[in-house]
This record gives sequence, C-alpha cells and structure tokens, in this order.
Amino acid sequence: MKLSEGVEQAVHCVTFLTGLSPDGLVSAASLAELFGVSTSYLLKHLQALSRAEILEATLGPKGGYRLARSAAGVSLLDVVVAIEGASPAFRCAEIRRRGPNPLPARYFSNPCEVKVAMLRAEQAYRTELAKVSVADIAAAAMAGDDGAIAARGCAFLQLNEKKTGNRASS
Amino acid sequence: MKLSEGVEQAVHCVTFLTGLSPDGLVSAASLAELFGVSTSYLLKHLQALSRAEILEATLGPKGGYRLARSAAGVSLLDVVVAIEGASPAFRCAEIRRRGPNPLPARYFSNPCEVKVAMLRAEQAYRTELAKVSVADIAAAAMAGDDGAIAARGCAFLQLNEKKTGNRASS
Repeated sequence: MKLSEGVEQAVHCVTFLTGLSPDGLVSAASLAELFGVSTSYLLKHLQALSRAEILEATLGPKGGYRLARSAAGVSLLDVVVAIEGASPAFRCAEIRRRGPNPLPARYFSNPCEVKVAMLRAEQAYRTELAKVSVADIAAAAMAGDDGAIAARGCAFLQLNEKKTGNRASS
Repeated sequence: MKLSEGVEQAVHCVTFLTGLSPDGLVSAASLAELFGVSTSYLLKHLQALSRAEILEATLGPKGGYRLARSAAGVSLLDVVVAIEGASPAFRCAEIRRRGPNPLPARYFSNPCEVKVAMLRAEQAYRTELAKVSVADIAAAAMAGDDGAIAARGCAFLQLNEKKTGNRASS
C-alpha cells in the first residue's frame, strides 16, 4: 500500500497556509521553494486541492493560493482524498466468480467476505484521518516549537506573501 | 492509496487452501485456473506468501502449496504485509526541513505531526486487518453459501489436489 509523495506536500502546504493573513496569498513557486520541491509537480497537487475546494486559487501574476475554508474544517482525510482520489485501496476483481464451471451470479449475491473485511479496515483508516484537521496539525507543530520554526515561517511569509486587500473569489 | 491486485488473489488462494486435506497440495497452475488469473503472476504472490511462512511450498512436478500454519493463525494483515511489504503507506521525505535557510536538525527532533497522524491512521487500518483471520473469511463464506459454492470447490479439489501422504517440509 502506497500513498503518493504528493500527500506529504499537500498536507504541509495546506498547514502552512493556515498562517496567512486573511487577505494573503502565496504562489505555487513560493510554496515549492519553501518545501524544496518541484514547482510543476506541486502545482498539480495545488490544483487538486483547489478542485476539492480546500484551497482557493487566484490566477495571474499576482495570484496564488489560500485556504478556501477554515483550517478546522479541513481534515487530513479531505487532503488525502483530494490527492489520491476517493476509490478504495483494495481492488476487487471478483476472482471468486472466475475459473472453470463458474456458478451463476445469483450464487454471489452477497458481497465477498474479503472485500467486506478489507473495506472495513479502510473505513477505520479514514475515520482516524477524519478526526485530525490541519488546524490540529498546525497547533501541534506550534506546541513543539521553541519559536525558531515559526520565526523562519514568518520571515518567509514577509518575503513571499501577497496581499490582495480582500478575499478574492477563485 | 492503492493495494496491488495481488492482495485479492493472495487472500482468496490462502482461504481456498484452508479446505485442503492435511496431506494435500495444490499447484500454482491449478490455483491460477481456479481464479482465472495468470499463473506466472500468481506464482510471484505464492512465493511471497511462502517467504512470509504463510504457505508451505513443495517444489517439483508433484509439488504445490498448502498452509504453513493454522488458518486461525493467518490474519488478513499477514497476507497484506506479505504481498505489499511492511513499509508505511505514507512516505515522509521530511520536506519541512528543506527550502531556504533551513534550520539545524535539532529543531526537528520531534517527529513531524503529519507523519504521526498519518501513521496513527495506518495503525488503525492494520489493527482491523489483524482482527480477521483467513479461518474467519472461510467461515463467513461458508455461512453465506447454500452449498453450491462449496460443491464447486470440492469438485475442483478432487481433480486438482495432490496427496503427499505426509506433511512434507518445504
């Protein structure tokens, strides 16, 4: 089971954007610089987060990204689903129905026990992720910081945050 | 997040092998026929299950596979880990430490809150999978069967099960 690298990048970007001014924006290039990742690759993830209405995107040279809703209203599950899609991790090809002398479909009217158990476990995973918001992540990060990490973030924002003077619509 | 198709094949094969005679074996080719999948592809998964000591493999033209331990002692988690590996699904590249003016490593002595939350959710997933054995899966399948599915399995075993007369070591 693998999550794409984009999940880490997406969660960190969204968490970082919780620290913006209400009228602030940060460009994809600035976020890519902050986290030392490829801009073009990150852009794909930021666009997925915008499509999921987690981020609000403003286009153009003065454009950038900010949260589309409160940090408490964005869970880790929201971010993972935005990047990875909502499909289950377990792929059921119904191989129990194949092979020689297959029985008619009516013999398999109940869902396969394997699928039921695998999806139950995925639900437990999703339930845990849904419990944690990016506000929680930001608060936990601040609680473990003696001030240096926050100061570095603030210095970065002073250089890279764009002020729009309003909450522009995307 | 994706699991490989091999997980479904592996769980069904191991569950099917719970129905063998104590001295029975089924070849990879027979299991591939039963589930309508490629033998060479399935063989890779059967070998992984053998390495994980879930199956016992007997080599040679009279060889095949059977459970290496009791069906109650093989959990879905055992099978998933055998096929997918034990690495976490979440990949942490520590991007919080990158970018301009990186802080010294001592500022990041605590594990990243993102990683902690992601791995906590994975633990919930694994805990659920560990609760279910292939004996449970086989029992649930039998409970939902009016006899036709079991009869088809028995007919298949009559044609394809090899009897060794003993519990050979692998």
